[in-house]
Amino acid sequence: MAQIYNFSAGPAVLPAPVIRQVQSELVSYKNSGMSIMEISHRSSLYTDMEAEAEENLRKLMRIPNDYDVLFLQGGGTLQFAMVPLNLAQKNKQTGFVDSGHWAQRAIEEARLVPGVKADIIASSAAVNYTALPDVPELRQQYDYVHLTLNNTIEGTMYRDLPNVLHGQTLVGDMSSNIMAQRYNVEDFGLIYAGAQKNIGPAGMTLIIVKHDLVEGGTELPAMLSYAKQAAKHSALNTPPVFAIYVAGLVFKWLLEQGGVEEMQKRNEKKSAYLYDFLDSSSLFSSPVKKSSRSVTNIPFVTGNAELDQHFVAAAQENGLVNLKGHRSVGGMRASLYNAFPYEGVQKLVEFMERFEQSVGGNK
Amino acid sequence: MAQIYNFSAGPAVLPAPVIRQVQSELVSYKNSGMSIMEISHRSSLYTDMEAEAEENLRKLMRIPNDYDVLFLQGGGTLQFAMVPLNLAQKNKQTGFVDSGHWAQRAIEEARLVPGVKADIIASSAAVNYTALPDVPELRQQYDYVHLTLNNTIEGTMYRDLPNVLHGQTLVGDMSSNIMAQRYNVEDFGLIYAGAQKNIGPAGMTLIIVKHDLVEGGTELPAMLSYAKQAAKHSALNTPPVFAIYVAGLVFKWLLEQGGVEEMQKRNEKKSAYLYDFLDSSSLFSSPVKKSSRSVTNIPFVTGNAELDQHFVAAAQENGLVNLKGHRSVGGMRASLYNAFPYEGVQKLVEFMERFEQSVGGNK
Repeated sequence: MAQIYNFSAGPAVLPAPVIRQVQSELVSYKNSGMSIMEISHRSSLYTDMEAEAEENLRKLMRIPNDYDVLFLQGGGTLQFAMVPLNLAQKNKQTGFVDSGHWAQRAIEEARLVPGVKADIIASSAAVNYTALPDVPELRQQYDYVHLTLNNTIEGTMYRDLPNVLHGQTLVGDMSSNIMAQRYNVEDFGLIYAGAQKNIGPAGMTLIIVKHDLVEGGTELPAMLSYAKQAAKHSALNTPPVFAIYVAGLVFKWLLEQGGVEEMQKRNEKKSAYLYDFLDSSSLFSSPVKKSSRSVTNIPFVTGNAELDQHFVAAAQENGLVNLKGHRSVGGMRASLYNAFPYEGVQKLVEFMERFEQSVGGNK
Repeated sequence: MAQIYNFSAGPAVLPAPVIRQVQSELVSYKNSGMSIMEISHRSSLYTDMEAEAEENLRKLMRIPNDYDVLFLQGGGTLQFAMVPLNLAQKNKQTGFVDSGHWAQRAIEEARLVPGVKADIIASSAAVNYTALPDVPELRQQYDYVHLTLNNTIEGTMYRDLPNVLHGQTLVGDMSSNIMAQRYNVEDFGLIYAGAQKNIGPAGMTLIIVKHDLVEGGTELPAMLSYAKQAAKHSALNTPPVFAIYVAGLVFKWLLEQGGVEEMQKRNEKKSAYLYDFLDSSSLFSSPVKKSSRSVTNIPFVTGNAELDQHFVAAAQENGLVNLKGHRSVGGMRASLYNAFPYEGVQKLVEFMERFEQSVGGNK
């Protein structure tokens, strides 16, 4: 069949060489006669694989030794609850930057943890989240301040952390731009990311947490406690072996490609190509303020919902798939994660140009 | 390489035709040009796959319509906490049958849920869990009574439910013998099972719950609430797509083989072959009381820890792998799940016979 380009926001495109490797060794992992799906998580086949994945991730993200790396389950949504359960122990006061849908979900979930108070310290709801909110000087020390580094649905991204957050314990949701953009792990108390965008298949959640923060939470049920998970090195119970294995192959691929800096460069190039077109088009446009724009998730519209729908269907027929915007905002969205190739963006822009001509360039 | 037989207790052997199918369609799922790992969980490719998996599971287990089926994450250990969080709402009084290691873990975790009282209503600790405990008449109605249907480490299994539990809301941990043994779903309020033994790869947890029981728990964080998960049909956030997909293939394979009755017949035959040998051997023996014996997990010993170790190593060299007993009990353990072939048991017994002769038949 013809080449397709998968713009899905997640689960998303994976590096083609990784998929081919998974396929080639699926029946017998490392000549063991067993599939990676069949190996015991107490075997050296597993522990060696996991250790290598962690080591490569530490290289890629420059994770200091006083941070634990956890490969857990439950996605970002479980982290919305685990973070306050574990880290809002001192004053039960937490602060949130309300930058969009997923930030709001994080706030809702924190408020379901008994006793936890979640202040919204900044919000861009007034501009419908088409820009990042300005964070004012904070008058108090929070147990932590939660920031969504990249807003998958709205297409906004922090390139630099707000200066005023310096001195607070920062919790970063990097689900949709982890390793697509360089951040300094030391700036965070805890980072989390669902795997299914830039890491690997759905079913694994990455947590990077400063070790001295995980000491609370020892009275929690085991699966909800960072302390207990860290003490057992993510193998408190059977870990999601296959998802960790594929993530490990992606980490290796990222290192071979040149690491996070190279990814960031490619992502800038890919997204600039699309943004330049959007800014010059008489039909398509980006709703997002220039200084707030994401390199991984790019929403765009024609201004006509029916035409948007027609475009998504026509693109699909031309092998440009999963361009429909999130149901909460409509329009289109192109997700350009690390594994998404430059030529896919070129194909998209070519197609958009043809589409624009075919409808006369008018809305 | 030579055929190996994988006796792992979990993650465990999967049906060979399932692994081959996963391999063959890994690059392009249903000719979509995308891997199953890359498809959106909001696409019909996913929802059709998930619906078929659930439908086949309902057939296999004869699940009535007033039960919800959930494909979640976090393994049995997260269920140890979710069950009391959701179901111990009325009186916060729960009862547990202490039949071994995993039952004890379930008790420990329930006691970490604030306010929940967990009574041990029966225990076979006194006989080191080598038999199932006798459950006495209960003097009170519990929010639920928890039963581990098969004790993976100790090798005991309930063939029939204790009569005295009739009238209680029964919660069953079927992690290690689900669909290996026929139970009536109607006898339970809730059933749970980690996937990595009889269902599919690690990273998915199956929950079958009577719909009128999930109405509590609406104030819980979303990922911990059966009500919220059921309302979103297990897609409250990104589900573990790959694990559900492979489980779906296993369900289809089970139906093709003849379903649960056929599996139960085969498992009786496989386990009887090994038990008969153990009971006639002068070197090897089963520590488990005959009427309590499991068909899926069969521990055995020589009575000499050093010889056990030697046996495990020699078996490994002969392609009979993962026979080491759980670290908490030592000795050996053969796990004979649905996908484990009869000829593997024959090979094991042949090897045990040769080993017995080689050491002179004496301990």
